[in-house]
Amino acid sequence: MKVAILGTGSWATGLARVLNDNGVDLLMYGVDDREIEDINVRHCNYKYFKNIKIEENIRATKDLAEAIDGADFILVTIPSQFIRTVLEDIKKILKKKVTIINAAKGFDMNTNSRISDTIRSVFTEDEINPVVSLIGPSHAEEVVVRMLTSVCAVSQDQKTAESVQSLFSNEYLRVYTGNDEVGAELGAAYKNVIAVASGVLKGLGYGDNARAALITRGLKEMVSYGLLKGAKEETFFGLTGLGDLIVTCSSVHSRNFQAGKEIGEADGASDFMVGNTKTVEGVRTCKVIHDDIANYPGFEAPITQAIYEVLYCGDKPSEKIKELMNRELKPERLY
Amino acid sequence: MKVAILGTGSWATGLARVLNDNGVDLLMYGVDDREIEDINVRHCNYKYFKNIKIEENIRATKDLAEAIDGADFILVTIPSQFIRTVLEDIKKILKKKVTIINAAKGFDMNTNSRISDTIRSVFTEDEINPVVSLIGPSHAEEVVVRMLTSVCAVSQDQKTAESVQSLFSNEYLRVYTGNDEVGAELGAAYKNVIAVASGVLKGLGYGDNARAALITRGLKEMVSYGLLKGAKEETFFGLTGLGDLIVTCSSVHSRNFQAGKEIGEADGASDFMVGNTKTVEGVRTCKVIHDDIANYPGFEAPITQAIYEVLYCGDKPSEKIKELMNRELKPERLY
Repeated sequence: MKVAILGTGSWATGLARVLNDNGVDLLMYGVDDREIEDINVRHCNYKYFKNIKIEENIRATKDLAEAIDGADFILVTIPSQFIRTVLEDIKKILKKKVTIINAAKGFDMNTNSRISDTIRSVFTEDEINPVVSLIGPSHAEEVVVRMLTSVCAVSQDQKTAESVQSLFSNEYLRVYTGNDEVGAELGAAYKNVIAVASGVLKGLGYGDNARAALITRGLKEMVSYGLLKGAKEETFFGLTGLGDLIVTCSSVHSRNFQAGKEIGEADGASDFMVGNTKTVEGVRTCKVIHDDIANYPGFEAPITQAIYEVLYCGDKPSEKIKELMNRELKPERLY
Repeated sequence: MKVAILGTGSWATGLARVLNDNGVDLLMYGVDDREIEDINVRHCNYKYFKNIKIEENIRATKDLAEAIDGADFILVTIPSQFIRTVLEDIKKILKKKVTIINAAKGFDMNTNSRISDTIRSVFTEDEINPVVSLIGPSHAEEVVVRMLTSVCAVSQDQKTAESVQSLFSNEYLRVYTGNDEVGAELGAAYKNVIAVASGVLKGLGYGDNARAALITRGLKEMVSYGLLKGAKEETFFGLTGLGDLIVTCSSVHSRNFQAGKEIGEADGASDFMVGNTKTVEGVRTCKVIHDDIANYPGFEAPITQAIYEVLYCGDKPSEKIKELMNRELKPERLY
């Protein structure tokens, strides 16, 4: 059994260590010389994990053909905007049928489709097994030091989901299976928008009470949107919805939360949007969802709408909050 | 309009400030000389809020008759074990029909009933209006410094709920109404058990990933129990369920979380159970729910069961976690 891991970032490294702990043969593929050298020579990934030592069996290459040669599984852990290109490169050199595991979060940069749909659009059914998404509340920073974590292997095909479940499960990583790919992937993407909003609240000086209310209303918004797109409601109350939402909205590890915090502290997004060269999935996801919602007249997504206006229309976060608090008093609208 | 506030603790003081900000006449009732003197003379509540100054209009008395004289509302913010006695004392001296607002969390110490049921069991329908519970994600430490907070006024009677909504709402406290008293009060009580579990995980050294998974599964457990007791499922996904759960499970402010942390650090509850003189609602609530579940053969509440065995049977938390992680791999069971 061999796994090719696309990416040498934090999540790629965290999952590489899981696989190595499970006795699985693996090879990472990356484009960053420094990260590759760190992994192969210094046996660490300094950029993300400072001086945490990783095992010598964990190796990386810049040669895509070498990485996927003989692989039974290809694990996708690269930013969403690069996925399609790399998959197209793989298609040209793929020699045997593989299972592609999506561990990325967000939407395809070019088509705005979910990542599993992108994978299926690149390959034929003869080339790949059913796609599996491996998602859930999982900071790489904790997985890499073997802290207790639970995630879901979600696939339209239960048997393939189970093959990924048994590949990754061990005494610190518990993997459940799931079959609602739409719900799981939308939850994993949408939560980044709510995480930006959570950071904004923090940056404006608000506390735990406000964040808890935001997460509660954010989950409601995710569910409503998911139902429009054919997801099952219950999926959003599980690890890939609520679980991932909680972990991302509460953590300084999250780039989305950090982006929001910076925007909240400045009470505006203009500086952030100019200087933002890093990948903050929530910023792009917010636009994708906002634009898609225009296709559903009468549908309301107040948090996404507010964050969109802050990010893309120059609105002040503090004014958005005031609007929110001055709305008419009413019953709590639930599910 | 006058409100009598039963209690001089942190939540009593936080809500007193809200009412005073809203121009409402109020008088607090307490039994602790030091706290009353702090409020009346030093205009602070040092025990809970150190040197935060509160307004001179906020006053407290040890005279229950004086406190409730002319009151339109009586706000209950005392620990659950003292509520029945104080209500019985009030019954003897009550001169006009009032609305009793329950802001306590947990179960009646003597009967294991919900607090609203206790209130109704003490008074006749001629003596009180329909009961309203004011609950939701609300650390007193944040409300008292006017940080953005959202809660629910829950009542079987919508008009009475609205009267409480308009009494408390202002630019930093947003009050929604709700009508599922069973769901709201069970959520507010049950979340303290999950908060103990969250503290245990922290004490054992686990991180955000584990906590997110715990909250996700804890919510599922609360919902399942709530359905047994006639609650509406959707209530648990709102402010009084999920919202309150998040805020309590993540916060050092929470006594339940702190208790769990101490138990996790010691990898056992024996020292804690001997030394525990403070009110930790989750410890008692865990027993009430555990004992009640025995009435429903086949019903499983794995988190409550594990915490019960740690608190009352001397089991080690670290062993409980191992059992949990070594269960058979399976699909995520949702709603």
